[in-house]
Amino acid sequence: MTFAAVRDGGGDVRSEDRTGGRLSEEQRLEWLRVIRSDNVGPRTFHALLSRYGNAHAALAALPELARRGGAIRPVRVCPREEAERELKAAKSGGVSLIASCEPDYPQRLRMIDDPPPLLAMRGNPAALGRPMVAIVGARNASAAGIRFAERLARDLAAADFIIASGLARGIDGAAHRASAASGTVAVLAGGLDHIYPPEHGDLAEAILAQGALVSEMPLGWEPHARDFPRRNRLISGLAVGVVVVEAAKRSGSLITARFALEQGREVFAAPGSPLDPRAEGSNGLIKEGATLVTEAADVIAVVRPILGQPIAPALEEPEGAGPPAAEPGRDERARIIELLGPTPVSIDDLVRLSASSPAVVRVVLLELELAGRLERHGGALVSLR
Amino acid sequence: MTFAAVRDGGGDVRSEDRTGGRLSEEQRLEWLRVIRSDNVGPRTFHALLSRYGNAHAALAALPELARRGGAIRPVRVCPREEAERELKAAKSGGVSLIASCEPDYPQRLRMIDDPPPLLAMRGNPAALGRPMVAIVGARNASAAGIRFAERLARDLAAADFIIASGLARGIDGAAHRASAASGTVAVLAGGLDHIYPPEHGDLAEAILAQGALVSEMPLGWEPHARDFPRRNRLISGLAVGVVVVEAAKRSGSLITARFALEQGREVFAAPGSPLDPRAEGSNGLIKEGATLVTEAADVIAVVRPILGQPIAPALEEPEGAGPPAAEPGRDERARIIELLGPTPVSIDDLVRLSASSPAVVRVVLLELELAGRLERHGGALVSLR
Repeated sequence: MTFAAVRDGGGDVRSEDRTGGRLSEEQRLEWLRVIRSDNVGPRTFHALLSRYGNAHAALAALPELARRGGAIRPVRVCPREEAERELKAAKSGGVSLIASCEPDYPQRLRMIDDPPPLLAMRGNPAALGRPMVAIVGARNASAAGIRFAERLARDLAAADFIIASGLARGIDGAAHRASAASGTVAVLAGGLDHIYPPEHGDLAEAILAQGALVSEMPLGWEPHARDFPRRNRLISGLAVGVVVVEAAKRSGSLITARFALEQGREVFAAPGSPLDPRAEGSNGLIKEGATLVTEAADVIAVVRPILGQPIAPALEEPEGAGPPAAEPGRDERARIIELLGPTPVSIDDLVRLSASSPAVVRVVLLELELAGRLERHGGALVSLR
Repeated sequence: MTFAAVRDGGGDVRSEDRTGGRLSEEQRLEWLRVIRSDNVGPRTFHALLSRYGNAHAALAALPELARRGGAIRPVRVCPREEAERELKAAKSGGVSLIASCEPDYPQRLRMIDDPPPLLAMRGNPAALGRPMVAIVGARNASAAGIRFAERLARDLAAADFIIASGLARGIDGAAHRASAASGTVAVLAGGLDHIYPPEHGDLAEAILAQGALVSEMPLGWEPHARDFPRRNRLISGLAVGVVVVEAAKRSGSLITARFALEQGREVFAAPGSPLDPRAEGSNGLIKEGATLVTEAADVIAVVRPILGQPIAPALEEPEGAGPPAAEPGRDERARIIELLGPTPVSIDDLVRLSASSPAVVRVVLLELELAGRLERHGGALVSLR
């Protein structure tokens, strides 16, 4: 099936998002416009493409969907010129924007609930095709923690794994440094031209020869605090497993571990003294069932069998492209919105209580989301803002 | 049933070992003579009492059993005077010899495969009746390990547990010291008059007010290297669970953990840095399924429900006192011995291959053991020496 066929629609509606071929430059531009439009996150992006088959049609539908969802002001759709500027800047900066349907896109990342539609990448694209293990941990790591992260990264690299991490001070930096020569992938919270922390500029450059820097944010995006947890889902999403080395309670590394669990990835943790606050988080993970790691072999023993299996999404998404018939009537929409409030409610309950079809409920939620009125929580829970 | 009735035998042969009453002084002397005789260990002791009903009859049978087992020289039976001297020395040293059938005997210890028939005790007998948690670990412990052991002992003591340990330098000493005021039991590898290491003399004295020193060895016995692993089964046997804090590979603490598993007791371990050789053993235990412990609550959560259950032996012993009929004929004995060699073989296989009854096989093994010709291995395996 060619992209033209997808664009023309026809009886066999198949989402552009799922073709597995390469996008044309025009399609890439349209994808970029959709994901850079207001209120469109990765999840909404894929819902739109699932419903409209391609980014072109989704762009056209966006304003009306948002209006129906009750947007107070018209929702900003990313202008063509703005997306062109971003594509041009990427090209001149040596940055590829890989679409989630393309063969170069990291396979495991594609399987998470909300893969970035376009992943910005600098460096060696081959690194993204190899099995990865993430190593993450405390910024204020101990000397022993740093040494352990280095040893683990080196030994996993020797076993042909790419090391994924977040380029932070401490454990992340140590893991990248020890695997820079063999291949490591750093996931940034800001644009690829915003290396954070600044003192890791040289490390970032060193990574590029064998490995890669990736981000879902546009060039020029300065990372803010809220971007880091969101970024962490990509670190776990890229990897078959995540090793947490020295993590305090309520640390970013624990967020990455939580994402790993939700994504069906393996979670490992290095133990530490019960008296060391830097080990509280990692010891806690082990108590909750994470595999204790003292050497690379502990990780390899668990992930090797998984690498032999076909890569499958953690949660099977039943729908393909939605049938055009799933169009809520005005009363139906009102009834569903009435069921929503500031308290999170499960989508299953919405379907049950509204007596509408799941497809219709999804459309109404999509509209609300595009209108900026919907908040999504973990476990398929939603609420009104 | 009175002891006189047991001694007189009769149709209802019930072992003195299982009565649950107090021994007379004469009976205690006979028990001591049996266990202090050559080639009689705790397992053989209980087999003898199971077979002969009481120590008096066992003493009378000993020489003939050993002869039948092929002893080259006559086996030394502990003379009455020697046992009297030991009892007298114990009395004047404030040491009680508690028999495994008596109500003061620690309940959980009684349930192990090979409880000491007589446990020498100095101190507060009430301590032996309370639920115990063992805390064991490295002699060359780190400052952090020491502090953790102290904190854990104190917190478990506050939750009404008696702390059992081995009075060694490092973790053991720290655990005893932190719980001396509330009650702690030190299990010695030598006699109760041989405090090892010598610098723990003051600690041993401090333990006596609320807690106790116990040993299965006679007063005057200087501990040798081989006595320590054997002693470790008593530390785990006394306790509902064993916490290992800082244990290197192949350390004594791991032996205690292994005994705990065989005895059906809970095993806990404190995590440590993967780079610290002192944590290799404890981290390894966690990998194998031990519960990771960072605070007393982790132990309490596991052992509290167990304390509510009736105390039962790890392996149900099917036999009561053996019927006097289970007497092997000369050919039968020869056939069983022929099946034995320097390679360990299971007792089940012996029964099957010899086509003798289990009771007969047990008698032949008892004879060989008393003759000093049998070696017992783990998992009910035996071989000829």
